[in-house]
Amino acid sequence: MSVSHVSIGWCSLIGGPLSFRHCGAYGGAMAEAQASRTESDTMGSVEVPADAYWGAQTQRSIENFDIGRDTFVWGRPMIRALGILKKAAAQANGELGELPADVADLVVRAADDVISGSLDAHFPLVVFQTGSGTQSNMNANEVVSNRAIELAGGERGSKTPVHPNDHVNRGQSSNDTFPTAMHIAVVLEVVERLEPAVAELREVLDGKRTAYKDVVMVGRTHLQDATPVTLGQVFGGWVAQLDDAMLALSYAVEATRALAIGGTAVGTGLNAHPRFGALAAEKIAAETGQAFRQAPDLFAALSAHDALVGVSAGLRTLGGVLMKLANDVRWYASGPRNGLGELRIPENEPGSSIMPGKVNPTQAEALTMVATRVFGNDATVAFAGSQGNFQLNVYKPVMAHAVLESTRLLADGCRSFTEHCARGIEPNTERIEANLESNLMLVTALNRHIGYDKAAAIAKSAHKQGLSLREAALASGHVTGEQFDEWVVPEDMTHS
Amino acid sequence: MSVSHVSIGWCSLIGGPLSFRHCGAYGGAMAEAQASRTESDTMGSVEVPADAYWGAQTQRSIENFDIGRDTFVWGRPMIRALGILKKAAAQANGELGELPADVADLVVRAADDVISGSLDAHFPLVVFQTGSGTQSNMNANEVVSNRAIELAGGERGSKTPVHPNDHVNRGQSSNDTFPTAMHIAVVLEVVERLEPAVAELREVLDGKRTAYKDVVMVGRTHLQDATPVTLGQVFGGWVAQLDDAMLALSYAVEATRALAIGGTAVGTGLNAHPRFGALAAEKIAAETGQAFRQAPDLFAALSAHDALVGVSAGLRTLGGVLMKLANDVRWYASGPRNGLGELRIPENEPGSSIMPGKVNPTQAEALTMVATRVFGNDATVAFAGSQGNFQLNVYKPVMAHAVLESTRLLADGCRSFTEHCARGIEPNTERIEANLESNLMLVTALNRHIGYDKAAAIAKSAHKQGLSLREAALASGHVTGEQFDEWVVPEDMTHS
Amino acid sequence: MSVSHVSIGWCSLIGGPLSFRHCGAYGGAMAEAQASRTESDTMGSVEVPADAYWGAQTQRSIENFDIGRDTFVWGRPMIRALGILKKAAAQANGELGELPADVADLVVRAADDVISGSLDAHFPLVVFQTGSGTQSNMNANEVVSNRAIELAGGERGSKTPVHPNDHVNRGQSSNDTFPTAMHIAVVLEVVERLEPAVAELREVLDGKRTAYKDVVMVGRTHLQDATPVTLGQVFGGWVAQLDDAMLALSYAVEATRALAIGGTAVGTGLNAHPRFGALAAEKIAAETGQAFRQAPDLFAALSAHDALVGVSAGLRTLGGVLMKLANDVRWYASGPRNGLGELRIPENEPGSSIMPGKVNPTQAEALTMVATRVFGNDATVAFAGSQGNFQLNVYKPVMAHAVLESTRLLADGCRSFTEHCARGIEPNTERIEANLESNLMLVTALNRHIGYDKAAAIAKSAHKQGLSLREAALASGHVTGEQFDEWVVPEDMTHS
Amino acid sequence: MSVSHVSIGWCSLIGGPLSFRHCGAYGGAMAEAQASRTESDTMGSVEVPADAYWGAQTQRSIENFDIGRDTFVWGRPMIRALGILKKAAAQANGELGELPADVADLVVRAADDVISGSLDAHFPLVVFQTGSGTQSNMNANEVVSNRAIELAGGERGSKTPVHPNDHVNRGQSSNDTFPTAMHIAVVLEVVERLEPAVAELREVLDGKRTAYKDVVMVGRTHLQDATPVTLGQVFGGWVAQLDDAMLALSYAVEATRALAIGGTAVGTGLNAHPRFGALAAEKIAAETGQAFRQAPDLFAALSAHDALVGVSAGLRTLGGVLMKLANDVRWYASGPRNGLGELRIPENEPGSSIMPGKVNPTQAEALTMVATRVFGNDATVAFAGSQGNFQLNVYKPVMAHAVLESTRLLADGCRSFTEHCARGIEPNTERIEANLESNLMLVTALNRHIGYDKAAAIAKSAHKQGLSLREAALASGHVTGEQFDEWVVPEDMTHS
Repeated sequence: MSVSHVSIGWCSLIGGPLSFRHCGAYGGAMAEAQASRTESDTMGSVEVPADAYWGAQTQRSIENFDIGRDTFVWGRPMIRALGILKKAAAQANGELGELPADVADLVVRAADDVISGSLDAHFPLVVFQTGSGTQSNMNANEVVSNRAIELAGGERGSKTPVHPNDHVNRGQSSNDTFPTAMHIAVVLEVVERLEPAVAELREVLDGKRTAYKDVVMVGRTHLQDATPVTLGQVFGGWVAQLDDAMLALSYAVEATRALAIGGTAVGTGLNAHPRFGALAAEKIAAETGQAFRQAPDLFAALSAHDALVGVSAGLRTLGGVLMKLANDVRWYASGPRNGLGELRIPENEPGSSIMPGKVNPTQAEALTMVATRVFGNDATVAFAGSQGNFQLNVYKPVMAHAVLESTRLLADGCRSFTEHCARGIEPNTERIEANLESNLMLVTALNRHIGYDKAAAIAKSAHKQGLSLREAALASGHVTGEQFDEWVVPEDMTHS
Repeated sequence: MSVSHVSIGWCSLIGGPLSFRHCGAYGGAMAEAQASRTESDTMGSVEVPADAYWGAQTQRSIENFDIGRDTFVWGRPMIRALGILKKAAAQANGELGELPADVADLVVRAADDVISGSLDAHFPLVVFQTGSGTQSNMNANEVVSNRAIELAGGERGSKTPVHPNDHVNRGQSSNDTFPTAMHIAVVLEVVERLEPAVAELREVLDGKRTAYKDVVMVGRTHLQDATPVTLGQVFGGWVAQLDDAMLALSYAVEATRALAIGGTAVGTGLNAHPRFGALAAEKIAAETGQAFRQAPDLFAALSAHDALVGVSAGLRTLGGVLMKLANDVRWYASGPRNGLGELRIPENEPGSSIMPGKVNPTQAEALTMVATRVFGNDATVAFAGSQGNFQLNVYKPVMAHAVLESTRLLADGCRSFTEHCARGIEPNTERIEANLESNLMLVTALNRHIGYDKAAAIAKSAHKQGLSLREAALASGHVTGEQFDEWVVPEDMTHS
Repeated sequence: MSVSHVSIGWCSLIGGPLSFRHCGAYGGAMAEAQASRTESDTMGSVEVPADAYWGAQTQRSIENFDIGRDTFVWGRPMIRALGILKKAAAQANGELGELPADVADLVVRAADDVISGSLDAHFPLVVFQTGSGTQSNMNANEVVSNRAIELAGGERGSKTPVHPNDHVNRGQSSNDTFPTAMHIAVVLEVVERLEPAVAELREVLDGKRTAYKDVVMVGRTHLQDATPVTLGQVFGGWVAQLDDAMLALSYAVEATRALAIGGTAVGTGLNAHPRFGALAAEKIAAETGQAFRQAPDLFAALSAHDALVGVSAGLRTLGGVLMKLANDVRWYASGPRNGLGELRIPENEPGSSIMPGKVNPTQAEALTMVATRVFGNDATVAFAGSQGNFQLNVYKPVMAHAVLESTRLLADGCRSFTEHCARGIEPNTERIEANLESNLMLVTALNRHIGYDKAAAIAKSAHKQGLSLREAALASGHVTGEQFDEWVVPEDMTHS
Repeated sequence: MSVSHVSIGWCSLIGGPLSFRHCGAYGGAMAEAQASRTESDTMGSVEVPADAYWGAQTQRSIENFDIGRDTFVWGRPMIRALGILKKAAAQANGELGELPADVADLVVRAADDVISGSLDAHFPLVVFQTGSGTQSNMNANEVVSNRAIELAGGERGSKTPVHPNDHVNRGQSSNDTFPTAMHIAVVLEVVERLEPAVAELREVLDGKRTAYKDVVMVGRTHLQDATPVTLGQVFGGWVAQLDDAMLALSYAVEATRALAIGGTAVGTGLNAHPRFGALAAEKIAAETGQAFRQAPDLFAALSAHDALVGVSAGLRTLGGVLMKLANDVRWYASGPRNGLGELRIPENEPGSSIMPGKVNPTQAEALTMVATRVFGNDATVAFAGSQGNFQLNVYKPVMAHAVLESTRLLADGCRSFTEHCARGIEPNTERIEANLESNLMLVTALNRHIGYDKAAAIAKSAHKQGLSLREAALASGHVTGEQFDEWVVPEDMTHS
């Protein structure tokens, strides 16, 4: 095969003298001249912006990992979780005598600032960094240390009286703190953000389940007309799917309440007080109101993140449920004249830049797009989760990020769909009734009286000859008009 | 872009007179001349092999769906489950007076034959058929009917005294029976096949956890040398991962104990006795010893299979656990001379057709390949699970098949790995000790005594100058020999 | 939900004395007593069934890898490819003086038997074995060797005059032969099986594109009524998707015509004649009529199988195309009375075991289930393809199997869909015309005359008041009846 | 595990009186009081921030789609592409007499501002909106219209003299413009951003291929010692993988140079000048220097995005290549004392917050995390790509976003890895030589002289007795010392 025509692109680049475009527009964080101070770590000194709370290791990461900077800087949930963790660790270390009371107190106060969100701008690192999250853990250590130093009246970068490693990171390693923060963030996001959003959707749907329990409509299987159901039953099916998905998610989330804290570098807890991990977990539980606890096996807790894989799968199932729900809604609302048209949904915006007056099921579209994204994120998480080696899985950041993104998108997607679509769904009763009347599958009610084979012949005859079912039934000679009217009652067929 | 060179293949096929190769070697079930009898359904009559128990609808499916025939014919688990279902349905219908006692009894006896496996050859259909599994449900109805007729001394195909629809399928629709059978098959395969296989692996690993609890070795994070662990802790981490994965799977499987039975065509239970579904579920529980029950919302149970998506995800997590475990084992066993070489695994076969004397971690390879297959199957299941419409999801067969295949492969893979690899794993203590001795990360024990920064300088100096850690520590002037020997004790560092 | 029953299962298994069920029904190949002969390899001697052509290493694999035996034994395509490879290797070695002419000739004759399919029963190994496929390569070596010995009048197992390693595997390693066979199998299956099947579907659709070029119907975007199209355009869109997918697949397949042969164990070609690989590739090309060639970089060819990942992705795209096509067909055929009903599809079998007279789009269902399976297989392939280490990727068998399975299913699925559905698709012109007439989006034709905003107002007014578009347009005062009839002509709006 | 705590969460939310937390911190775009002006669309009037260039429809979308606002606002590539498209459309319409010259010119000038990036802040919409991208197309129409009005001295929101629909969107529909912009963005990002980044990595690796062509080292298959290779061959294998992946990607990208423009609402081109699409594509080609052209079948171009699925798969393959490469690098660099240690990589930052002096392969970790993300994005794209219905696929935005994200991450990841890791890779020759010397697989060189079986015995004996290969060979009696030294020459075994 000749590839000469594809030479635009790759082949030309590698064939001749290269002149790479170093796209100046991208990257370049911290590029402009600005006041700086000198921070140091075990590798030497680094210039850090003068007003930054972060230190040398964070600065190195900014410079070494300019990957997806626009959209992959850590958001609120992870920063807050790191703050919660550092606070709890200081509290535990203080109680255990591992930190002087004044140092512990300074760390707690500084960590509270991290928790509050006021220092978010000082967490500039992106997801794609070291796979243990060490750099973000150090970012937290450095910010807390410098903020604590400031609270104590000291000089940023001096590591006195609060050292980022020896004090803030006391009894910890990134290998146990970062997964601990991952779990904290995921639990809080699911419980505080996702569950209320889904619950709201669920309540709206459940309300309509009740409201429309007497609206009898055509059932559809294989996209083909089937025996009748009520619109209440349709809503009820969606509610049941949501309930099942959320219950399954609850089990999965439960496993993330087990924290790696106390394992330090490899799971042994080296350099941590023997009671540190359990106590820190207690403090985290107290801070968050969630039943966090130390994981029973810390080796597994560092080297694998199967609990997150489970949560991700739970989110994926929820995504699948929402896809089915949104698809049903938009198909029921298809038309207005050439579709099924049995449901009406709110008209929120002009639907087309060319077709005047067109209205589209845009909320359903956004929600199903969210579902496809959640599926993709889940593929990332499961893949990454399988790639641990020995005492560490080094895909921590990408796993945490994908789970948090899915949680956020599902929550936002549900809330948007609830407000702008679900709440306004109404039956188009005229259409529903007309469809129901013409439905041949009402014939199924005759099975018990005349048998499947004769009933089938009646339905086929009606279909072929364009008759109503009643007409065809009477013509068959197997059923009288009175029998038909007694036996074929759509409402009765719904058993509702 | 010119595509002329790719003309081998597609383009040539569509440009000129086509002469398709109808590959005679494939398909062709029932092709040879053989004695036949005539069976009929609502569409007319069909010739069926004289000795077949199946009837017209099964025969139509054989002819209409020649897709992947070599490997996608339903296996034991689904056939057995269909038998269990038909038996339970007849028992329930008998008790409820929906079937005459003698008919019910004949159906039960015939269904027992299906359960036993003696009629497996009469289930010739493949997975890729109608998406409701109707044809396999009818296959079961037809086989049970004809077998029951035979037991009653009647003539196959006569539908007397046992009609496939009116009697065997009494109060049922494929839309509720097939998902019921799916759940039965999945629960039994997980509980009877997979759990024992994983348990066996778990016990072997747990035994070694105890046996090697005092073997201290190098820990590894980021693939780099880290502080020490015991081999027992390594085994314990694997055991903990298995336990967590199996517990999560148990929750997922629990959801599949809810059965669609009683929903009939669209979830309303039309044509079924109101108590039929719950009673049939009881009978299924009695037959299998598993706590099956009727699903609380039958609309959801027909139109979605989120429970199977959950089981599939649980199997995927288990696959991820096994991948991590198998990877660890083969890396620890890498060598024999140029790898880590800290574990020895059984030599089961010559490893190379060209390199004499080579031995490879083949069981680990098979197990990780199983994992990749399970991941793929899970992608199929989740995708299919999201594609329901209205009152039915028509991806039932492909979902059931993929979950059952994953279950089977995981079970077989675990058993094979246990017998031919895990059971024979032994530490290479000589190598383990030599590695441990040279490990610079023992320096971490000094953190608490001299601080992180000085400890780092010692480790770097040892690394750069090729010194032992002790030599570098003494040279630093921060530690005496006595202190070093007291503080740096690998066994103590494992906290085990 | 009570979860107390969850304890049945995992927890109970690991809590008490274990009593595993070794399910005797599974596995057990070669279990019965039978006549045997003794074969040997570098690990010692092994009993092999007396009438088997395979030898010691195959036998070890049977015993060591009892994983998925029911459905994962290699099929025709891989066995044939191994035969082609061994024949070509012997021809090349003969020409290069690496094998005596008589030995080369014996190997060629024996390999021809493998190619023909007459020895398929002697390839009993499953996919889940060593990740290099060594055992299947040795299976081929042993069968060819023993068959060649037989042809020479010697004794099976004697390795004289044809040795499985020194002669049949001359200049080869599993590491280069197995991926070579993978590529041969994939190319032949795509070209001989898949392409004709897709071409047949394409021709049927293309015929209908022409036949229905004048049938004007409602267009639909967002599932909502849109401006008109012709049915010919609809078919044409499907054809274009198929063409694009097959062209993309052709490019991907092209990359698999590069063969690893000649790389031997690690890519260096050690122990092979320097010209062996290129010459063997020529022989393979001659045998198959496909433009195979030696891969330019043999290190990449052993340590990665990106070409297969590419083919798998191409198959996935085709799967996506078929899903869209099948979904369109079944939605257009939805009804018969309460759906869109614009297309009629063949009625192949009774659709429901409970709803008499129901007909379902079963071929579309089978085809979309195939698509979900192909997506899953692709996930397996891409995952496995990323997992190579150093000089070898040890996921070869699972990758080859998944690609071949997808190819087979797509081919079978297309053929089934073509014969039993596509060929019989017909427009329901009555319904099409009625729908078209009521379509409000014909208003778009007014944009160019009265502007988007006024046109929108007309459409909205028609929708709200239940008017025809013409009525609403006239009522607006912006359009006269004559103008409307001149401007709003559905046929013209299709530009066809 | 007790599961009693599971009830926190879902169950409690749906059991009692609900009190949802409407998390005030999230969402809230445009929430603060600010000066506004009134814009209108076919649904009525809307308040828009006074200084915004966008109009009513954009504003509606902001309010209706508050989903993932933090990270899912469209970035530079899509905005630039929309600008390019609007400019080209105006040029084409101007030439064809569809727009007055002065209006066309105003649109071109305004579009140039969009292209330049100076109006990026006026594109506030997120990915999760209507699935046709209509709202972002209208965003572009509105911004261009208002900017053009401003250039003409008119009043924003007046739609005079440049109307967003009738002028800026002339002859267009979102259904053809948005996918056109998707293709423009993807092609430019791949060609301008990704290709140079990969090329740079490729050149660095290729340089080392040459530099280390004479460094002979142990080969490894199955993670076990194998026959030798040169380090140059190792680098060469990586280069070959990159080349193959980029060539495959080039084919895939080629398909995205076919643009949907000219199809308007459903593919028929209604309301567009017959030559508009082709001419607009020419203008786009001229503006970008890329060989864009109108797609041959516009129905396929609107209803499916298989070309993007293909590009996504190509990116996935590249991701797989990078995963293999990065894994090899970090394994080769594992140690420093207890791993393979054959390569040295740059030390960029302290590796551990607890283990002093630890250095980790962080760039490899970031790159493999990117790969897992790219795999997930690809799953999203393929899923979404299969979900088109009739004349439209309504997953356009999520597909475009995922492909662009993958492109960006791969480019950034490659650049980071190149600069901070690949460029600094060096062999640890001492370790390489020591390993090579002890490698038993050198025995393979004896095959051709003494046969596979005897060679195997020698290797086994060396392994069991801890001898060097030479010692064992001599002890076997099959080889003399002179023969051994002549036959077993590692450099010769690499054939390099």
